[in-house]
Amino acid sequence: MLTIVELVGIFFFAVSGSLMAARRGFDMLGSAFLGGVCGLGGGVVRDLILNQSPATFLHPIYFAPPILAALCVYAFTPAVQKLHRLVLIFDAAGLGLFCMTGTMKALENDFNPVSSVLLGVITGVGGGMMRDVIANVTPDLFNPRDIYAIPAILGATATAFAWNLGILNLAVGICIAALTFVLRLSSIRFGWSVPMAAGHWHRENPPSPPANDGPRRHFL
Amino acid sequence: MLTIVELVGIFFFAVSGSLMAARRGFDMLGSAFLGGVCGLGGGVVRDLILNQSPATFLHPIYFAPPILAALCVYAFTPAVQKLHRLVLIFDAAGLGLFCMTGTMKALENDFNPVSSVLLGVITGVGGGMMRDVIANVTPDLFNPRDIYAIPAILGATATAFAWNLGILNLAVGICIAALTFVLRLSSIRFGWSVPMAAGHWHRENPPSPPANDGPRRHFL
Amino acid sequence: MLTIVELVGIFFFAVSGSLMAARRGFDMLGSAFLGGVCGLGGGVVRDLILNQSPATFLHPIYFAPPILAALCVYAFTPAVQKLHRLVLIFDAAGLGLFCMTGTMKALENDFNPVSSVLLGVITGVGGGMMRDVIANVTPDLFNPRDIYAIPAILGATATAFAWNLGILNLAVGICIAALTFVLRLSSIRFGWSVPMAAGHWHRENPPSPPANDGPRRHFL
Repeated sequence: MLTIVELVGIFFFAVSGSLMAARRGFDMLGSAFLGGVCGLGGGVVRDLILNQSPATFLHPIYFAPPILAALCVYAFTPAVQKLHRLVLIFDAAGLGLFCMTGTMKALENDFNPVSSVLLGVITGVGGGMMRDVIANVTPDLFNPRDIYAIPAILGATATAFAWNLGILNLAVGICIAALTFVLRLSSIRFGWSVPMAAGHWHRENPPSPPANDGPRRHFL
Repeated sequence: MLTIVELVGIFFFAVSGSLMAARRGFDMLGSAFLGGVCGLGGGVVRDLILNQSPATFLHPIYFAPPILAALCVYAFTPAVQKLHRLVLIFDAAGLGLFCMTGTMKALENDFNPVSSVLLGVITGVGGGMMRDVIANVTPDLFNPRDIYAIPAILGATATAFAWNLGILNLAVGICIAALTFVLRLSSIRFGWSVPMAAGHWHRENPPSPPANDGPRRHFL
Repeated sequence: MLTIVELVGIFFFAVSGSLMAARRGFDMLGSAFLGGVCGLGGGVVRDLILNQSPATFLHPIYFAPPILAALCVYAFTPAVQKLHRLVLIFDAAGLGLFCMTGTMKALENDFNPVSSVLLGVITGVGGGMMRDVIANVTPDLFNPRDIYAIPAILGATATAFAWNLGILNLAVGICIAALTFVLRLSSIRFGWSVPMAAGHWHRENPPSPPANDGPRRHFL
């Protein structure tokens, strides 16, 4: 049962990866590859940290959703201007499912609750971050206009609590995933945000991207 | 014998990494490092997924080709305008060798054929992708003007078939690697390509890189 | 004792990650995340290569320094123009500590000295490189205006020698780390550099970043 939920989550994330490939002008193989990285990357990193061979490579069925996603994006891509919205919605759906399943798998492997929550968050946000890093754009995860990590942290924490209370079953898990999904979309819709990294001075002096090209030897 | 073939493949890839370092204006240590990432990165990822300590770190001889490659690039770099061509040729040679050896190593570790083919492809394209991601350019893998992944997939699949038929020896392996090399170079020479990720609408509405700087809270 | 030194090193690196987040305009969660990647990433990669579950995830105390660093950067960020200098100083301090502890851990796991030195260097430079790759800037590691890798290589090599001579204790380790720190800062202050990757032709023909957008099918 968990496998079916995971396959659906992989498909959601893979669609967001394939849509990114479409936006960047990659071809269909790049679409399938970027979808696969986005859908499977977080879980592969989680399994490596759990010191296991990634489940993805033991059961080739996991490679089906990215291929399906690349075909769907090829066949049904709407007009360009709608793509950004779709990426965000599919990404949020994958986020909800993966935080829950990732935390659960870490807890099943006897990891401590704090690390399990973090591994759940990594499973949820890792694939999307790898998608953005590979596509050479600044990761959406760091976009200060809305919150991405907080829904993931809440979803993973709720999963760890439900596990410790012994009430974690499929229905509860789906509820947690749905709540994470709604929280993420609400944060985009209503512009929820957290304070900037740079504290109070930021609003007056907006930071520019690092120049990295002048001499710096005299700075000390 | 396989080790010598691997060292040659590492050298080819490392030259492509060092040439990229030269094009981006990095220094010699960056050249050796980027060559090492490009030559050894795919194999390290493969070994991590096989849940082994990477062979690279057990036998320091694997670090020799990147150092040699950085010295060669330093000594013999041709004029700037020829560099891009050379990167592509060396990259294709490494691709051919690594798809074959990567698939073989996964099959030797009792992975299923589908995952073995994918691990062979990752061994082949992973180093080059890491080179581009680290050098902060859009990975060549996704360039829609020619095909990169298809020769890799065909080479890895041919290796898996030859393995299952029990006819895989050094000569057959070298033939498969050479075929992959020729396919990759032909695809560049003749502009072979696969359909775009975004389907029919793409030609009229070329996608722009994500803007990522306007407000998006009202999009839902 | 080694754990306290490691926590201090993680804090130094995490501050450099959080300052990068401040410079790029990320929010506080991005700051904690980028600090965590920078402070813990090199060690996680080292442990994966040592084929162990990363120590970070077995002892949640390792997650405290990045959170503390994000709070410090939020509370005490100085004016924007001073940030670049601070990133470099904290980064150098982390570099010194991590080269030493990373090499030591690899030697304790019976790796050969060459690989141990490389793993020490990876522990030292890996986190900072991941910080830059994720923040989508060209890694500082490759900056040809000063040397970053040479202090790391010297510090790791000194650690391996001291280990083999049986004289490696806390005081010697701190000395090696301090020396690495001073070497790194001196290289920035005095503009020490190594030859460019591209050899003699470089000064006349400065390389431009890859254009990657013209047709290339006729190049062969």
